[in-house]
Amino acid sequence: MASNSFGLLFRVTTWGESHGPAIGCVVDGVPPRLALAESDIQPALDRRRPGTSRFVTQRRESDTVRILSGVFEGQTTGTPIALVIENEDARSRDYGPIKETYRPGHADFTYDAKYGIRDYRGGGRASARETAMRVAAGAIAQKILGDEVTIRGAVVQVGEHAVDRARWDWAETAENPFFCPDAAIVPAWEEALDTARKAGTSLGAIIEVEADGVPAGLGAPVYGKIDADLAAAMVGINAVKGVEIGAGFAAAAMSGDEIRMEGGQPRFLTNNAGGVLGGITTGQPVVVRFVVKSTSSIRTPRRTITAKGDETEVSTEGRHDPCVGIRAVPVGEAMMACVLADHLLRHRAQCG
Amino acid sequence: MASNSFGLLFRVTTWGESHGPAIGCVVDGVPPRLALAESDIQPALDRRRPGTSRFVTQRRESDTVRILSGVFEGQTTGTPIALVIENEDARSRDYGPIKETYRPGHADFTYDAKYGIRDYRGGGRASARETAMRVAAGAIAQKILGDEVTIRGAVVQVGEHAVDRARWDWAETAENPFFCPDAAIVPAWEEALDTARKAGTSLGAIIEVEADGVPAGLGAPVYGKIDADLAAAMVGINAVKGVEIGAGFAAAAMSGDEIRMEGGQPRFLTNNAGGVLGGITTGQPVVVRFVVKSTSSIRTPRRTITAKGDETEVSTEGRHDPCVGIRAVPVGEAMMACVLADHLLRHRAQCG
Amino acid sequence: MASNSFGLLFRVTTWGESHGPAIGCVVDGVPPRLALAESDIQPALDRRRPGTSRFVTQRRESDTVRILSGVFEGQTTGTPIALVIENEDARSRDYGPIKETYRPGHADFTYDAKYGIRDYRGGGRASARETAMRVAAGAIAQKILGDEVTIRGAVVQVGEHAVDRARWDWAETAENPFFCPDAAIVPAWEEALDTARKAGTSLGAIIEVEADGVPAGLGAPVYGKIDADLAAAMVGINAVKGVEIGAGFAAAAMSGDEIRMEGGQPRFLTNNAGGVLGGITTGQPVVVRFVVKSTSSIRTPRRTITAKGDETEVSTEGRHDPCVGIRAVPVGEAMMACVLADHLLRHRAQCG
Amino acid sequence: MASNSFGLLFRVTTWGESHGPAIGCVVDGVPPRLALAESDIQPALDRRRPGTSRFVTQRRESDTVRILSGVFEGQTTGTPIALVIENEDARSRDYGPIKETYRPGHADFTYDAKYGIRDYRGGGRASARETAMRVAAGAIAQKILGDEVTIRGAVVQVGEHAVDRARWDWAETAENPFFCPDAAIVPAWEEALDTARKAGTSLGAIIEVEADGVPAGLGAPVYGKIDADLAAAMVGINAVKGVEIGAGFAAAAMSGDEIRMEGGQPRFLTNNAGGVLGGITTGQPVVVRFVVKSTSSIRTPRRTITAKGDETEVSTEGRHDPCVGIRAVPVGEAMMACVLADHLLRHRAQCG
Repeated sequence: MASNSFGLLFRVTTWGESHGPAIGCVVDGVPPRLALAESDIQPALDRRRPGTSRFVTQRRESDTVRILSGVFEGQTTGTPIALVIENEDARSRDYGPIKETYRPGHADFTYDAKYGIRDYRGGGRASARETAMRVAAGAIAQKILGDEVTIRGAVVQVGEHAVDRARWDWAETAENPFFCPDAAIVPAWEEALDTARKAGTSLGAIIEVEADGVPAGLGAPVYGKIDADLAAAMVGINAVKGVEIGAGFAAAAMSGDEIRMEGGQPRFLTNNAGGVLGGITTGQPVVVRFVVKSTSSIRTPRRTITAKGDETEVSTEGRHDPCVGIRAVPVGEAMMACVLADHLLRHRAQCG
Repeated sequence: MASNSFGLLFRVTTWGESHGPAIGCVVDGVPPRLALAESDIQPALDRRRPGTSRFVTQRRESDTVRILSGVFEGQTTGTPIALVIENEDARSRDYGPIKETYRPGHADFTYDAKYGIRDYRGGGRASARETAMRVAAGAIAQKILGDEVTIRGAVVQVGEHAVDRARWDWAETAENPFFCPDAAIVPAWEEALDTARKAGTSLGAIIEVEADGVPAGLGAPVYGKIDADLAAAMVGINAVKGVEIGAGFAAAAMSGDEIRMEGGQPRFLTNNAGGVLGGITTGQPVVVRFVVKSTSSIRTPRRTITAKGDETEVSTEGRHDPCVGIRAVPVGEAMMACVLADHLLRHRAQCG
Repeated sequence: MASNSFGLLFRVTTWGESHGPAIGCVVDGVPPRLALAESDIQPALDRRRPGTSRFVTQRRESDTVRILSGVFEGQTTGTPIALVIENEDARSRDYGPIKETYRPGHADFTYDAKYGIRDYRGGGRASARETAMRVAAGAIAQKILGDEVTIRGAVVQVGEHAVDRARWDWAETAENPFFCPDAAIVPAWEEALDTARKAGTSLGAIIEVEADGVPAGLGAPVYGKIDADLAAAMVGINAVKGVEIGAGFAAAAMSGDEIRMEGGQPRFLTNNAGGVLGGITTGQPVVVRFVVKSTSSIRTPRRTITAKGDETEVSTEGRHDPCVGIRAVPVGEAMMACVLADHLLRHRAQCG
Repeated sequence: MASNSFGLLFRVTTWGESHGPAIGCVVDGVPPRLALAESDIQPALDRRRPGTSRFVTQRRESDTVRILSGVFEGQTTGTPIALVIENEDARSRDYGPIKETYRPGHADFTYDAKYGIRDYRGGGRASARETAMRVAAGAIAQKILGDEVTIRGAVVQVGEHAVDRARWDWAETAENPFFCPDAAIVPAWEEALDTARKAGTSLGAIIEVEADGVPAGLGAPVYGKIDADLAAAMVGINAVKGVEIGAGFAAAAMSGDEIRMEGGQPRFLTNNAGGVLGGITTGQPVVVRFVVKSTSSIRTPRRTITAKGDETEVSTEGRHDPCVGIRAVPVGEAMMACVLADHLLRHRAQCG
C-alpha cells in the first residue's frame, strides 16, 4: 500500500506539511447518494482542534474544512472526495533552532536518515497536524457505517494515573477536557498535567475506543484480519507505541470466553476478545486500546546530536501539548470508523 | 490488500486448510540471484513444528517443504517462489463433535457468520497450521536481509509468570522447550503447563522479537510506518490480542529518549522507541512484543451455542497445545523478517 | 500490483515455469457457497490444451487440474482456492542450444537484462504454459458471473486472412480447429498454416472476445475503467501487441452512436463503443479484440546475439505452434471473465 | 487498485470535477531531493491547455498549477506532492439541457447506471479536464526518469487522413497546431477539421508516443508487464478505444525480429515489438499508439433517451473540440512518463 494512503476500498490519501500552505486528503470509494456537507465533518474536527483548553497546544487554527469534489447537490457522487484545510498559524520562526539539531523523540533524525532532506518547520509531514485529515475522513466513514454503529473513545490513563473502570461513565467524557470517563480521577490528571506543563515536560496516555453495533462477519482470515488492520491504524497514529484488542496483554493470564443466546443473538459473556475472533467481528462491541508516548517536544534540555553528527543538547520552545494523547481520542475514533467502513465494503463485495 | 496476501513488494500469499491435502504459499518480488534451497527453509520450519515436546500439540507432521518454482540451479530467478507442504496427519475424526457446535474462543462462529459455510475440520483456514507458511516465507525474507540483520525471539511470559530481564540470556532460548531467555523461570513454566495440560486448560503467553542490524531509514511516514506494519503482522498471527513497540504501554508513564554518538553512529540511550521513530527505523534494535491468548481448544466443558442457535456446552478432545504461544516464537520472527524485507525493497525503490 | 497477481477483489496469483515440477495459481476473494469442482475447470483447460490438432504445438500434457484448498464438500468457502497442474512432458533436452543464445522475438534477452538469470528451459516463466492457470481462474470467475453472462471468443484473422463478418456464425467456432466463426475462410487458414509449418515459420492472429449479458454499471471512472483493465488483461497475454474495444482503431474515422429503448432497456444502435462508455459498462455486449504476433520459436535461422554479446544465428527445434493465436482464444475468454468478475465484486462493494 | 489512483510505487491520485471549484492530484512515492517547482510543470500544462487554436475547445482556463506539499526549498522531500488547479471558466449554464438527457457517446448514461447520481455539469468527473492532472503528474515522472529518457508524441491520423511515415519529422510537431510530424498532411487536416467544426460534428484521431533512452530490464513478467500497464494507461484516457505496442495489429501478418550488436549494445533490427519483449523493455524505443474516438459533444441532433427512459434527441451547444485527439498528445506523453517512472522504481526495488 502506498505510504500515504490507507484502506483498500474506503481509501484515504492524505498530504500536507505542518507549515505548508494547506493540508488535505482524498477519500476514494465512498458509496454514492450519501448526504454529505462540510457541516458533517466540521464538528469532528472541532473536537480535535488545538487550543481548546490549557492542556493542549495553544496553536490557533480554525481548521475549517472545505469539500472540493465528489459531492453534488448535497450528496456523494461515488467519485473521490477532496478535502482541504488551510494552515493559518504556522509560525516558522519557532523552529529555527531545530533546523540542524535532532529532537531525540521526534522523527527528525529518521526523516533525514531516509530522505536526506526534511521540512523541519513544525515537524513537517511528521506533525500531528496530519491527523486532522484522519478525523475528517472518519466523519465520512461514519456516514457509511450509518446510525447503527456508534463509535466513542476515552482517555483511560494519563502518565501513571489510570481510571477506575467501576466508575466508568461515557457521559463524563464530554464534561472534562480529557475525554475522561471517570470524574473522580480528573483532578489528579489536572494536577499532573499542570506540573508537567510548568516543568516543560509532558506525559503519555492510554486511549480506548469502542464501536457498538458492528455486525458479525466483518473482517477476513489470515492477512485481512480486522484486528490487524485496527492495530496498524492505531499504531500509525503519531507517537503510538502499542495497541490491544479486548483484554489485550492481560489475556496472557486469562482463560477463554463462553457464549449464550440473548434476544435471539449470540452474546459472548466476557468479550475479552474485543469483538473479534479469527480476525472477524462477533457482533459484540469492538474494543481497542492504544498508548501514546509523552510529547517529545519539551523545554527541558536533552542530550542529542546535530545533522553533522556532533553531540549537543536540544530543547524546544514551540507551543506543544503537555499530553498529546488527549487530542488522540478523536483520531482513534476516526481510525476505527475508517477501518470498519473499509471492511463493511469489503464484506459486501465478497459476501453480498 | 487481498485477505490472504501480505506485503507490498515482498509479497506472500498463503493458501490451505488444516485438513486439506496441503498448505502452501507464493512469495513474489524476491530479488534474483539469491542462493536458495529447501535446506534454507526447513530448519525454520523444524523449530516451529508440533510434537517437539510435551508442551506443544502432539500432532505428527514432518512439515517437509518443497520449492515448486522461482528457483533455478540453486538461485532465485526473480519469478514467484511457490512452496508447498503436504498435510500428513489430518485426523478428521477428532473434529466431528464440533461440526455443529461453536468453540467460544475459536473462529467457528465468525466464519459461519461471514461465509455461511466453514471447513470445520481442525479449524480449516483459521488453524495455526497456516503459520507454517509464514515461517517458510520468513526464511526467504531473511535471505534478502542478509547476514547483517539478526532476528531472534523469546517467550517472556507464560500465564502469570514473567521472565526476569536481569537474567536475560539469548543463548538460553535454545536450551529449553519454551524459547525462554531466563533459565530460572523455566521450572515454574513447566509446572504451570503441566498443571494446565492435566486440567485440560491452557495458558497464554507474551513473545518478544528483536531485530539487530537494521539500517536507519526503513519505513515511511503516515500510513507506511514500519511499526504499523509490524503491528498488523503480529496481530495477524492467530490468537494475538496485543502488540507493543519498544517500551509499549509502559511509555504512558515514561519521559523521552536521548542520543549520543558511538563509533561514528547515533545511539539512542534507552531505545524505548523500539528502534522506530515517526514510522522509520533509527538503526537501533527493532523490538516488538505480542500477546497470545490461551488456546481455546480445551477439554473443560464451556457454555456455547450451536449453529442453529441452541445453547449447549462444548469441550474438545483433539490434540492441542497447552500454550500455543510457545510455537508463536518462530512465527513472530518470520513476520519480523517479512516486514523488514518488504520495507528494505520499498526503501530501495524510493531512495535508491 | 504485484507482478504475478491480477485483479483487486477477484485476485489471481500464478506461479510456475514451463519445465518446473508444476504450475499453479491461488484465487482469492471468491464468494462463498458457489458450487465448484475440478470438473467445472477441466473443460476450459481441455479447450486450450496443446496437441489437439496439427495446427498447435504437439507437446503432450493432460493438464489435469487439482483443487488443493478453498472448496469444502463441493462448495467454495470464501478462503483462497489453490489450483495446481503437474508438468508431465517437459523435455529439457530441446532447449540446450538456446541456453546461451537469445531468440530475437522471445523474452530471453529481456529476462537476462532484468534479472541476470533465467530458467531457459522452455521459456521458463515466460512460457505460454502459464496461461493454463488463467484459463483455470477464468472458469472460477465464470461461476461468479453466473449463467446470465455468456463469454465467447473467435479467431478473426490468421496472417493476412480475415473472416468475413457477414458470414459470422458462433456455432462454427466449435466445428473447426481454429475457433473460426466463418466456415468459408477455414480452408485458406489450413493452407496458410500448413505452409508455415512446413517452412518452419509461423503466423500471427487476431482474436475477438465478446461478453453478453453484462449488466450496465460495472467499471469505474478514471483509473478503474473496465476497458483499461481489459486492455491490460489482454496485452498481458503472451505475444499480444495490441487491443481494441468495440470499433477500436476504426473509430478514428467514425461518428457517434445513438440510443433507443428496446424491451424497456436502453439499446445503443451501433455499439461501436464495445459496451463501455466512460469506463463503465452500458449493458450492451462487451467486445474486445487483440492481436497475437507470430510465434517467435521458428526453425528458420535468424540473426541474433549470445548472452556474451557475440553475433550469431539461432533456430529452434522444439515443438511449437505455427499459430499461437489459436490457443489464445480460451485465454482471452478467461481474462474477460476475470476482469468482469473483479468489477462485479467492486461494484457490489461501492454501490450495493 | 483504487479507481482514482494509478501506479504502484509512483502513485498518482486525482480528484475533481469539470465544474467544481478545482481539480487536483496527489503524487506519492517520489524520490527525495529532485529539483521541482511549478515552473517544471506549467509548460506541460500549457501544451495541453484549451483555447490555443481554433481546432480545440475555446474554454478559457489559465490552468495555473500550485504545489501545496512535498516540496521544500525547491526540492522534493519524499512526502506526497499535492497539486491543484482552480477551475476558472466553468459555465454551468451550457449544460442545463443535458441534465435529464443522455448524450449517446458520453458517460452520462453509465454514470447514472452505476451511481444513480451524476454531476452533469460539463461531464463532471468524466470530463477530459481531469487529464490536466495527468499531464502535471507526468512532468514529475519525467524528473524521475531524468534527461536520458526522451518522451515525445505526435498525431498520426485525423479522421481518415494518416501521415506518411516517410515524411516523418519530429521537429514539425512543434510547428503546427496538430502535433503533426508530416507537414504535407497538415492542410488536409485543417480542411477536415474546419468542415467538421462548421458541420457541428467531430473527428477521431490516432496518437503515437515514443520513449527513447529507456534502459533494458524495466517491466516484469506475467501481470506486471510494462506494455500491459501502458495499454491500461492509454485506454484509461478519455475516449480511447484501442492501443498498440510497436507494430500492433499489423503484427498479425509479420514475421519475427532479429538482433545485432551496435556500439556494444544489442539492437533489434525492426523494433516491431515496440521496445518490449515478454513485458520487459529491450532498450529500444518504446512505441505506443492509441486511438481517440470522435468527440461525442456535437451540435448535430442525435437520437437518445432521457434519464426516465423516454426517447428523444440531443445536441450540445457547449464549447468543445472538433478533435479531442489533438489535446491527447501531451496526455499520452504524460501517461508514458508515469508508467516508466513507476517501473523504474519497481525495478530498482527488486533488482537493485
